[in-house]
Amino acid sequence: MAREFLARGYDATTMEHLAAAAGMTKSSIYHHVSSKEQLLQLAVSRALDALFAVLEEPPSTQGPAVDRLQHVVRRSAEVLDAQLPYVSLLLRIRGNTPVEREALDRRREFDARLSALVQSAIDQGGIRADLDPRLVTRLLFGMVNSVAEWYRPGGSTAAAEIADAVVTLALDGLRRTSD
Amino acid sequence: MAREFLARGYDATTMEHLAAAAGMTKSSIYHHVSSKEQLLQLAVSRALDALFAVLEEPPSTQGPAVDRLQHVVRRSAEVLDAQLPYVSLLLRIRGNTPVEREALDRRREFDARLSALVQSAIDQGGIRADLDPRLVTRLLFGMVNSVAEWYRPGGSTAAAEIADAVVTLALDGLRRTSD
Repeated sequence: MAREFLARGYDATTMEHLAAAAGMTKSSIYHHVSSKEQLLQLAVSRALDALFAVLEEPPSTQGPAVDRLQHVVRRSAEVLDAQLPYVSLLLRIRGNTPVEREALDRRREFDARLSALVQSAIDQGGIRADLDPRLVTRLLFGMVNSVAEWYRPGGSTAAAEIADAVVTLALDGLRRTSD
Repeated sequence: MAREFLARGYDATTMEHLAAAAGMTKSSIYHHVSSKEQLLQLAVSRALDALFAVLEEPPSTQGPAVDRLQHVVRRSAEVLDAQLPYVSLLLRIRGNTPVEREALDRRREFDARLSALVQSAIDQGGIRADLDPRLVTRLLFGMVNSVAEWYRPGGSTAAAEIADAVVTLALDGLRRTSD
């Protein structure tokens, strides 16, 4: 259903479209879900649950903050690969309905936890202290999320290569130092 | 007019809306432009012209490729600040009309020139050789372009601070090295 919402836009998608995509009649789909909005909630919750689950993984909670940050950045890129239509839908949410506003609240909570992790990494001396942690969080996840605009699972660039490149670029930068 | 397209979506915006936003009547706006599509072309050309102009600036054409790349990344972030509604509109183009397809072609040409610059910087040993130049280009400009989603001119984060942070993160990375 996420693909239907993405292809047509949420407003233009009807329960008939969603039923047809699921191989059901319009009356049978109502045995499973009560509304289009409930389907949107299921879809964006799938993306949000996967992202919050990353924060509970042991490498996200143990060890130096810079290593935890690196793990979260890498795993977020992997979630984007594994849950692409759901993450893409989440990234388009603008807050027009209660379901969308709740999703935006959870996105903000996720951003706040990442921002706190960036701050911890600064405090521990693991990452540079001359950049604003909220700005760093936005740029880091702006980079990760931008992958949703062009990435196609099974295409020429593998998910693991993207995750590696994001982590290398973000943590170590492009500039070649004397080596 | 870019703001009208952004607020309503291109398809839902009529010449009446555009005329009203410009303080004109519907008949008087047709003395200036022949169609909604021509207005879209003017808007996205403004963003594209500003981006291509960056590539012609002396610091983009002279000196080591890594310094040229740094200049282009910084100036692209500044163009985003100076031309925010036009760049935002450009980033939403999906190729549904001839004007949109022409804009996408110019975006691809811009990306190809950046990719060539990244390759030159690798060849000269200025940036690391272990990442695919096209992937690097996408991630770099995904990061720059993501700023359009939250940046507001005159807000709490100044354009110059964002441009500095993008360049520092991309070139030198977040990790604190022994210093």
